[in-house]
Amino acid sequence: MTHTVCKTNILPLTDVQIRDPFWSEYINLIRQVVVPYQWDALNDRIAEAEPSHAIQNFKIAAGEAEGEFYGMVFQDSDVAKWLEAVGYLLATERDPEIERIADGVIEIIAKAQQDDGYLNTYYTLKEPGKRWTNLAECHELYCAGHMIEGAVAYYQATGKRKILDVVCKFADYIDSVFGTEPGKLRGYDGHQEIELALMRLYEATGNERYLKLSRYFLEERGREPHFYDIEYEKRGKTTHFGPWIINDKSYSQAHKPIHEQDKAVGHAVRFVYMCTGMAHLAAVTGDAEMLESCKRLWDNMVSRQMYITGGIGSQSHGEAFSVDYDLPNDTVYAETCASIGLMFFAHRMLQLEPNSRYADVMERALYNTVIGGMSLDGKSFFYVNPLEVHPHACGANHIYEHVKPVRQGWFGCACCPPNVARTLASLGQYIYTVNQNTVYAHLYVSGEAKMVLSENQVVLSQESNYPWSGDIRFTVQTEKETAFTMALRIPDWCEEAELSINGINKPLDGIVVNGYAMIEGTWKQGDTIKLHLSMPVLRMKGHPLVRQTAGKVAIQRGPLVYCLEEADNEAGLYQFLLPREAELHVQEDPSLFGGIYVVTAEGRKEKFTDWGESLYKRNTDAETEPASLKFIPYYAWANRGLGEMRVWVREVHS
Amino acid sequence: MTHTVCKTNILPLTDVQIRDPFWSEYINLIRQVVVPYQWDALNDRIAEAEPSHAIQNFKIAAGEAEGEFYGMVFQDSDVAKWLEAVGYLLATERDPEIERIADGVIEIIAKAQQDDGYLNTYYTLKEPGKRWTNLAECHELYCAGHMIEGAVAYYQATGKRKILDVVCKFADYIDSVFGTEPGKLRGYDGHQEIELALMRLYEATGNERYLKLSRYFLEERGREPHFYDIEYEKRGKTTHFGPWIINDKSYSQAHKPIHEQDKAVGHAVRFVYMCTGMAHLAAVTGDAEMLESCKRLWDNMVSRQMYITGGIGSQSHGEAFSVDYDLPNDTVYAETCASIGLMFFAHRMLQLEPNSRYADVMERALYNTVIGGMSLDGKSFFYVNPLEVHPHACGANHIYEHVKPVRQGWFGCACCPPNVARTLASLGQYIYTVNQNTVYAHLYVSGEAKMVLSENQVVLSQESNYPWSGDIRFTVQTEKETAFTMALRIPDWCEEAELSINGINKPLDGIVVNGYAMIEGTWKQGDTIKLHLSMPVLRMKGHPLVRQTAGKVAIQRGPLVYCLEEADNEAGLYQFLLPREAELHVQEDPSLFGGIYVVTAEGRKEKFTDWGESLYKRNTDAETEPASLKFIPYYAWANRGLGEMRVWVREVHS
Repeated sequence: MTHTVCKTNILPLTDVQIRDPFWSEYINLIRQVVVPYQWDALNDRIAEAEPSHAIQNFKIAAGEAEGEFYGMVFQDSDVAKWLEAVGYLLATERDPEIERIADGVIEIIAKAQQDDGYLNTYYTLKEPGKRWTNLAECHELYCAGHMIEGAVAYYQATGKRKILDVVCKFADYIDSVFGTEPGKLRGYDGHQEIELALMRLYEATGNERYLKLSRYFLEERGREPHFYDIEYEKRGKTTHFGPWIINDKSYSQAHKPIHEQDKAVGHAVRFVYMCTGMAHLAAVTGDAEMLESCKRLWDNMVSRQMYITGGIGSQSHGEAFSVDYDLPNDTVYAETCASIGLMFFAHRMLQLEPNSRYADVMERALYNTVIGGMSLDGKSFFYVNPLEVHPHACGANHIYEHVKPVRQGWFGCACCPPNVARTLASLGQYIYTVNQNTVYAHLYVSGEAKMVLSENQVVLSQESNYPWSGDIRFTVQTEKETAFTMALRIPDWCEEAELSINGINKPLDGIVVNGYAMIEGTWKQGDTIKLHLSMPVLRMKGHPLVRQTAGKVAIQRGPLVYCLEEADNEAGLYQFLLPREAELHVQEDPSLFGGIYVVTAEGRKEKFTDWGESLYKRNTDAETEPASLKFIPYYAWANRGLGEMRVWVREVHS
Repeated sequence: MTHTVCKTNILPLTDVQIRDPFWSEYINLIRQVVVPYQWDALNDRIAEAEPSHAIQNFKIAAGEAEGEFYGMVFQDSDVAKWLEAVGYLLATERDPEIERIADGVIEIIAKAQQDDGYLNTYYTLKEPGKRWTNLAECHELYCAGHMIEGAVAYYQATGKRKILDVVCKFADYIDSVFGTEPGKLRGYDGHQEIELALMRLYEATGNERYLKLSRYFLEERGREPHFYDIEYEKRGKTTHFGPWIINDKSYSQAHKPIHEQDKAVGHAVRFVYMCTGMAHLAAVTGDAEMLESCKRLWDNMVSRQMYITGGIGSQSHGEAFSVDYDLPNDTVYAETCASIGLMFFAHRMLQLEPNSRYADVMERALYNTVIGGMSLDGKSFFYVNPLEVHPHACGANHIYEHVKPVRQGWFGCACCPPNVARTLASLGQYIYTVNQNTVYAHLYVSGEAKMVLSENQVVLSQESNYPWSGDIRFTVQTEKETAFTMALRIPDWCEEAELSINGINKPLDGIVVNGYAMIEGTWKQGDTIKLHLSMPVLRMKGHPLVRQTAGKVAIQRGPLVYCLEEADNEAGLYQFLLPREAELHVQEDPSLFGGIYVVTAEGRKEKFTDWGESLYKRNTDAETEPASLKFIPYYAWANRGLGEMRVWVREVHS
């Protein structure tokens, strides 16, 4: 069901099956550990987690239980994100038991909806009569957006309309409240989310009302006189979190209209959620001004304010972007949710214009910060994703207070874990986009995808041992010969790519367009395309204006950024030196985390002999001694207890 | 008037005249700019400063004005510190005009004192009946301590007893309230200060009651059940700044009794003020356990948690110490007041045991952080003294938010400016200590000092161009030949010292004891001692466990730590490299700040040619190009507008 003029379209998740040595394990973890754990958490059955009360809030609002609202103003969104993850899991594998649970939740949600369509347990239970009085702070439309996303996912997976009808009624009601027409409230949410959700609802239903409402929320943002100030005055200057949220309008990217914004500023998650909505709208409408705004903000973010791990938002104050080129490795924020939002934004940009620069960033975020946000057993999570950790200094009343050296169980403000769950559960959406006669492969993930190309049904199989190996084989399954173009991404980290079709070498010269090898052909059943991406170990350098990477080098292989951990080396990682000429060896280590590839090098370590007790000494030089360095992929750090970690390692001439 | 068994004693300020090319300018600034400015600020006559209301509070409490208390709970202490600075200035140069003003203030203070001796405008005006109910937070005894210090200074300078009588009455009253005797309150202040002040009052009056009360406050601290908790319960769990101050007892070093404490923890100013009181008490009583506690805490602080600039307290959260060896240069706190307190502590340790390790640290703090805390025109001040500044990133909602790249006018919480004023105004006290027949020269500051040695009156003149030159000449003035020992500090930064007496070389071999050249002699009028301290430019290294100095070098010459500033070099100071073999040249620059010595070197600067827009690139190496590095003394930084600054510079093999 498409109503769009996108350059390329996302495949329905029901048409993509992942069978991948790397990713299937993650998706099984989501299915078997994370989503069931989350369900228990939402129902307050996890003793060690902070109370959620999220399901209970809905039950009370539905008249099925007694009690009072408990939790954050955005507590409802936890249920919505859970439902969304369930939807994605069901799209690839039906499961009657979980579907039964989800249908039960949907019944409660539907009952909690007010007659006019309104749906929010905080306002219904705790502040009745106060709805839409504090959008700057209270996440009403944010919660609405998540419920819409959950509903769309569940509907698309199961075909069941009940929750879709609920959110359509809600969205229709929202549309009756907000807008530029006389009598309507000219507001928008303090935390963007409704914009991207309405775009998804538009895609799911074809109802242009939702597209227009999304555009309204995007374009109303930041106009003067400022809505936050107007509603603040109107409600008698009360605040929920303090007046700074109302005053610091750049925190929620409401300091200017979007088409006048040119920098990634403020709360990073809000920023990328907003941009995701903008890009989706531009993709669907072809709006050139919106496209330009998306590109301007994308460029600023990825060329000025992104960590090599795909982390964004370097500042703990406000979980926010900083100034250009300010990327501290130790006092970093780099929230997991922000990198997930970065993937969303990249994904929508790929619909707008297939260009590997978006997919390269999407891959960087996915393979490093997003999966690094979760432990390898699926049981603990990072909010903050540092690139350098000194556990002895992480604690209360320290500038590292927000940096946790080990992942935490489940948070009171539980945004990151369910966000990881819904993203990995929907990974199939990120692999390909298609248009009339071209299929773009953005990610290399093994499995099958069904698609229509040149009006024929085609199934494309992908097979690889990615991200450890850059050898990928595609096999075409089609009943009749079909002319289409295979567009295979040549990643930015790849120095040499080779291609063969049915065993015959095909030069890449002249066929790479915007980072994709464009392989035209008329394809028949069993045709194979082999792509070889050379995967040498790379020494990465940071931009000269990034002071935090000066004199340092980061190791990357394929999409994986590597790091040193104390567990493999020893404490004092800041004393390790990687000579510029040192050879970097890559090898499989089957004993580590079920088999990963590690990078080793002969380096040096600084050593001061007989230093004594003085803090400072004159004319004393460090000697260096040989030291073997062992790097593991960044995503796998902190799975062996407490210890130092460091991505950027000091480089020296040997 | 001495009642002590100190190993060495401080000279009365009235007996020390400073006539020093370096310091006289500073002291004139205090006299002509800072103290008058402060007086205007205390009277709310500075338009651009935050309101003080401090004098007005006293007038209201004295019944001489109408109105309400305004300001912090410790607002009174600003008046006390001003009075203390005035006392010191008068001790060296009487000034009828300022004495008239001070006498007027003293009249008001005396009238503001309650009949029972209590003196505190906050409690008198704002919370009558609530005195001594919240010592953890409300600085009552802290304010008392500052008033005592001010009174002692004024009395010692002028001989006028009025304010001394006021504080004696107050201290007697405090003694009637606090103590271990039945019916007394077993409390102590949340901000140490009363302890050191009572020791000074004891020295000024000889009244043992104050010595005992000081010991009580010191030794009661941290006992269980905990006083903060008891008073918190008693007052119904109200708090002024939030319960964390009550809960986090290490913030105010009240987590354990002092003799069980072994680390510098918590708020740095509180810590050094406490230690100053402890050391003074140990010096006066000879208490061995107290001496051991002082040494234990001193050693931990200076060998684990002190910046090369003599800054202490690396954490902005709580203006506090961190864990051992954690000394960030950019997110640093290093409050000016804390380095002043460090001087106090060192100074008292010198009374306990003359050992150059205390004087070395005292000198380091004085010549770097303390004077660096004030602009060269005496009009603006740093609270926070960073060792690395990136002005473009200093701003709201940033991890550098507390770091100001330029000094600020006058603060709402005005602790640092008056603290600098009183310290520099009393600099004469820090130069010498004496005992029966030995004079210790701790600092090299030109001028004259009167002292009694071997029962004769001696005047010692000192002449030098310190800190620029290490040539110091002492001349003895005495009516009759006197046998005494000149003990001249050989600073830790000095590699070669030479000595001559009346032009005849005297070898230092065997006469250096605890860092002092002990020159015994029978001295007559006109005898001269010349000390030559070699003052090469030093490359300083940080302890191997300080990760923030790894691979870096700091420049020091004499007591002065140097830094690179953007004004002399160019932006991107992190790209400058100092080759290990580079020659370091020192030269006078008469054009800069009225004449300072700068250090220059031929170094390198990193340069990436044609980097482009990417944030990260593979296998790209920085080239380096020759770059001249110019270092200025750290204390003089930020006197030429906004720019980068850095103490620790990257070092490379050339």
